[in-house]
Amino acid sequence: MNRVLNFSAGPSGLDISVLKRAQAEFLDYHGLGFNIMEVSHRGKVFEEMHNNAIAKIRRLYGIDDDYAVMFLQGGGHMQFAQVPMNLYIGGVAEYANTGVWSNKAIKDAKILGINYRVVASSEADNFCYIPDEIPFNANADYCYICSNNTVHGTQYKSYPDTHGAPLVVDASSDLFSREVDFKANNIGVFWGGAQKNGGPAGVTLVIVRKDLLDRVADNVPTILRYKTQAEANSLANTPPTFGIYMIDLVLDWINEKGGLEGIRELNEKKAHLLYSKIDESDFYTGHARFDSRSVMNVTFNTPADELDKLFVSESEKENMIGLKGHRILGGLRASLYNAVSLENVRVLVDFMREFERKFG
Amino acid sequence: MNRVLNFSAGPSGLDISVLKRAQAEFLDYHGLGFNIMEVSHRGKVFEEMHNNAIAKIRRLYGIDDDYAVMFLQGGGHMQFAQVPMNLYIGGVAEYANTGVWSNKAIKDAKILGINYRVVASSEADNFCYIPDEIPFNANADYCYICSNNTVHGTQYKSYPDTHGAPLVVDASSDLFSREVDFKANNIGVFWGGAQKNGGPAGVTLVIVRKDLLDRVADNVPTILRYKTQAEANSLANTPPTFGIYMIDLVLDWINEKGGLEGIRELNEKKAHLLYSKIDESDFYTGHARFDSRSVMNVTFNTPADELDKLFVSESEKENMIGLKGHRILGGLRASLYNAVSLENVRVLVDFMREFERKFG
Repeated sequence: MNRVLNFSAGPSGLDISVLKRAQAEFLDYHGLGFNIMEVSHRGKVFEEMHNNAIAKIRRLYGIDDDYAVMFLQGGGHMQFAQVPMNLYIGGVAEYANTGVWSNKAIKDAKILGINYRVVASSEADNFCYIPDEIPFNANADYCYICSNNTVHGTQYKSYPDTHGAPLVVDASSDLFSREVDFKANNIGVFWGGAQKNGGPAGVTLVIVRKDLLDRVADNVPTILRYKTQAEANSLANTPPTFGIYMIDLVLDWINEKGGLEGIRELNEKKAHLLYSKIDESDFYTGHARFDSRSVMNVTFNTPADELDKLFVSESEKENMIGLKGHRILGGLRASLYNAVSLENVRVLVDFMREFERKFG
Repeated sequence: MNRVLNFSAGPSGLDISVLKRAQAEFLDYHGLGFNIMEVSHRGKVFEEMHNNAIAKIRRLYGIDDDYAVMFLQGGGHMQFAQVPMNLYIGGVAEYANTGVWSNKAIKDAKILGINYRVVASSEADNFCYIPDEIPFNANADYCYICSNNTVHGTQYKSYPDTHGAPLVVDASSDLFSREVDFKANNIGVFWGGAQKNGGPAGVTLVIVRKDLLDRVADNVPTILRYKTQAEANSLANTPPTFGIYMIDLVLDWINEKGGLEGIRELNEKKAHLLYSKIDESDFYTGHARFDSRSVMNVTFNTPADELDKLFVSESEKENMIGLKGHRILGGLRASLYNAVSLENVRVLVDFMREFERKFG
């Protein structure tokens, strides 16, 4: 087997040890004679694994019982709708616009006809930074941010102050990548799709502060209410059972790596290595402003579109995949999610050096 | 490995050949050095598999380009909301109530505040039959049925006449189990969760007639519009890529079994075997009325609750799982989805005979 070096922006790679564990028990989960995807979500076997996964997430993030931890479906797009449907109570919803995904969330606020306000935006500068000041107001129904912007490669280094209003965090692309203090940041809702750092696509981890559950209006359909799933421990409908199982395996692997602290340190090392290469070179240019650089998605380019294309095709010959930039921004992008090893980043940096030597 | 005999109501078993195929390429999909869950849903590798799976579904059901075939998330519960949100245009929505799941769909119609009418119901008789006459009206915005009722074990033998109104079919628990003529039945929307006959939980196959896509009101959030996903070939957000891959493998297996015709014949044989055992015995009693019996879920009981419990625990000793009835109906239930072999039904029937001999 010639395993690729996977720099995909998502769905993205998993550590080989996680895949091997799932493969080993694919026909026979814990000697029980089935794959865990083949049994009821209401049976003991699934229930135990499911509850263990939730407990691991609570421990990782230090989340107490004031929060409901749920595995839902539909990804960030579904949350763009569910957040206003569940949290808006007739006041003002405030959004910070730092890229494609917050823009989409704002679009859904508009479609739903709620009263919303964009309090800060870096759109005029092609989303190359996170605004220094985000003037959220204490009386907002909620304050919305996207913590890591996959397309443009920017990331909040810390969360903005909401002055007491509930903070809503789309952490789709930096889930499980660093520590988060839920209470200190006044987090109301926090979510991430599994497909970057957590497992296969199709599971959305959604964490909601329980005091917000009763806000939901009478005309919100059953399954779109956070309250429905919080009260049912995510089992109001059939959850994506195999995806949750894969997340559970990934959580064990994260713990082996030293939990969120260990993972963050490793992620910072990887990002530092790659950004240093970009900074020392006149050939490569980073997109994000220095202070807003994402540890997860490194966006950069060579001096010419044609060279960017050549970079991608040459990298593929070296067994690297996923380095083409998002179609909106163009250029190149290396995603350094949890499962990307420091060694693989070294290989990429060596390749960049060689590519510059040949074509620079 | 001691593989169980899996009579679970869902998530349910998969054929061992399907699991083995997925296991064999778990670390290395088609020699490419990754699991298909590790790569972009916008890349060539996933796209080809995805489009092949859709083409196989079109061929199986004989669906032409008048319909959009989509892989969505959220299961039946999400469809209970999406159907009125997308199809209701201010007239009347008509529902036939044949069990737990149609009841839930009706509840969401009520929550959404649309004008709806229940035109037929078997609720007064504990949902033991499908009403003979379902007086749908030609001018309904849509006419809603649940084609197979998992909890009570009933199934439509043919779909009711809507006199031209679009028929909406929740086929969650008899998806891929028999032929369906979409045009002759005037089907507008047809869906099924994968977790019974199609693959792992977390993927909902939703088929929508394209002329209905423009009905959606302006205030429906982006991802909840069928139109969004129909126009994006289900890629408006990240789809549950691994689940779709598993469905693709299951579709190949269905084709090996002779397509929907072959599968239906096999399913009928299995159901006939089990119902014959129930009918010949004074010990076992079936729940569903003869003409409404489900080929998928066989609901029955012994003369006493205690014996039902004993039946479940004794069957587990014989390596059979999933035979406990749903908590709403109680008793026993054997689900005979596609992946349950005729041989396994024979083993169950032998066990029933022996159990009756011992405890009858």
